[in-house]
Formats: sequence, structure tokens, C-alpha cells
Amino acid sequence: MQKLRVFESISIDGYFTDAHGDMSWAHAGAADTEYGAWVAGNASSGRGTLLFGRKTYEQMVAFWPTPQAAQQLPEVAKGMNAAKKVVATRTLKPTWQNTTALQGSLVEAVKALKAGAGGDITVLGSGSVAAQLGEAGLVDEYQFVVVPIALGAGRTVFSGAKKLKLVEQRAFRVSGNVVVTYAAA
Amino acid sequence: MQKLRVFESISIDGYFTDAHGDMSWAHAGAADTEYGAWVAGNASSGRGTLLFGRKTYEQMVAFWPTPQAAQQLPEVAKGMNAAKKVVATRTLKPTWQNTTALQGSLVEAVKALKAGAGGDITVLGSGSVAAQLGEAGLVDEYQFVVVPIALGAGRTVFSGAKKLKLVEQRAFRVSGNVVVTYAAA
Repeated sequence: MQKLRVFESISIDGYFTDAHGDMSWAHAGAADTEYGAWVAGNASSGRGTLLFGRKTYEQMVAFWPTPQAAQQLPEVAKGMNAAKKVVATRTLKPTWQNTTALQGSLVEAVKALKAGAGGDITVLGSGSVAAQLGEAGLVDEYQFVVVPIALGAGRTVFSGAKKLKLVEQRAFRVSGNVVVTYAAA
Repeated sequence: MQKLRVFESISIDGYFTDAHGDMSWAHAGAADTEYGAWVAGNASSGRGTLLFGRKTYEQMVAFWPTPQAAQQLPEVAKGMNAAKKVVATRTLKPTWQNTTALQGSLVEAVKALKAGAGGDITVLGSGSVAAQLGEAGLVDEYQFVVVPIALGAGRTVFSGAKKLKLVEQRAFRVSGNVVVTYAAA
């Protein structure tokens, strides 16, 4: 069985996007080479499947395949473009390389992915997808980058109560990001 | 100038109370003697002033002066009862020992407390008070105990965007609580 992980940058008040859908605050802090190396290591680990909702996919495809991304974040861009990606959409035809649309119901499609041989699955952003998979009991691990900012309003990735178990935590001094990793309890 | 600190137990999704005002989830985890010692050390440090909103005051006064509190959490109860306390209320006459009601506007009264000789001021719970003081730029430090639970809905202590600076973080393995301390940026 493949493991399903939800990975999110969140504010201190728990939001992965602000009230206008903006996620740029997550990367607006001081340049932190230690944190950058950790992100690049994650992105270039190269195995497994990335899973997006439609909105997050549209934000990602507008940035990662561009020359700007290759210039600003070469390692991460290479990893994101090369990775196997699936999008939860009934309407969109994905144009990003190595990307397919999920067929049928989200929960059933993800159960099939978890039972398959495609490696671990990581949800990035995609709050609605994360909430639905959390409710269905399909999320094995949550990894949050807690960014030192409060947003005041926004969207969270939980639609109900859920007990978790702390697995790991790590602070990055320059950016002030704190990474916390939880397993479903 | 005295320092004003906001201290809150929050869920992973950023709430200090659930949708029904309940805060008991913050203490529902495994007994963690290391975390308990840290809390008792905080509560018995014995100087400074605790600041509450009316709702939080009513929850606190219903528990800390009782024999149950003395039995379950003797060190913390002793510290809470002995501490100098102020309540932001225009209607309530406080009955808890060492407690007075704040006179006049919250912001002006807290400015006077900060300029006085009463030691540091700590806001516990009291989301509305914390939000108003944060907006007024009067909060020097936020300390959050991030409890390994998601609530799905509730109240947060921020009413708008605010950049913070990570000062310290510490994880407690048994409970899975992660303490993060931020300074106003």
C-alpha cells in the first residue's frame, strides 16, 4: 500500500491560502538556504505521485514550466516538471508534462492509486482534496511548514476534528519556518 | 515598559477554542510529565499580571479556585489563584482573589499597565482581547502550544495579517505538543 501525504505551507492561524487564494506569503520571507535545501531535497526525491485539485493545478502549471521558475528555483522546477502528477478534475485536459486527470470519484481513484505501484502520493495545496481525503481516512501523514505570519482569514485543509500524532519537528532559523510532521492517530 | 505576551493552546488548524467555545481538547492528550513541568514552571513563576476577557475569566474562575483544580493540578492552581489578574469587562464584578476589572477602554488601560510597574502581562485564551491588542500593536510576544489535533472550526486570535519572528520552538514527545514563540516583527 502506498502512503498518502498532505504537504502544506500554513500560517500561524492555520490557513494554506489567504482569503483571496494567494499563497505567495509562504515564500515571501528572508532567503533561507538551509530551508531551500530541504525543499529542493523534497522536490528532487523524484519518486511517487503529486496530487492536485484543479485550482492548485492551475496555479502550479502557470509557474513551474516557465523560464522564470527555471531561473529562480531550478532544482524545485526540475523536480516539479519531471514528477508524475494527477489532477482531480472532471473538466480540465492537463497540458503539463507527466500529468493525467483522475477518473471517477476522488476517493475511489485515490484508493486505487494507494493500492497501485506508483509510489507514495503527495497532496500539495488543494485544500478541498485534502479535506475530502482526510474525511475518508485516506491520509497517512500531514506535513506542515508553519510560516511566521498570521493571515486573519483564509482556507484550512481540515473540514472536521481529527487527532494526530507528532512524528517530527524542525525549525529553520533564518526564515523562522517550523516544519511539523504528523501521522493520522 | 512591561512586556505583553499572548499565550494560547491552539489546534493545528489555528483555533484556540472549538466552534462551541470548548478548550478541553487542549488537555485531553496523554499525560506528559515533561510538558506538565514546563506548564507548572510558567504558572508558578509568580510575577506579572494575567489579563482575561470576560468569557475566559468566567471559564477560569469556574475551575481554578475549586478543590478539583487543587487536586488535579496543584502547582498550576496555586499559581493561577495567587497571580495578579485583570479582566476586561464593563459589567462583571470579579470575585476571584487578586482580580480587578479593567477601567475604561481596553487599549488605553493596557497601555497604562505596560507603562506601570506591575510586571509583564500575559493574555490567556481571550481571543477578542488578543485580537484587539494585536491590532493596536501592543503585543510583544505570542507563545502558542500547538496541540496535535485538528478541530475543523473554531475561533482564532488574529483578526488581520501580521508578520512575526520565530524566537524559539520546542517539542514535547509524549503529548506531541509543539511550543512556538514569536516576537512581533
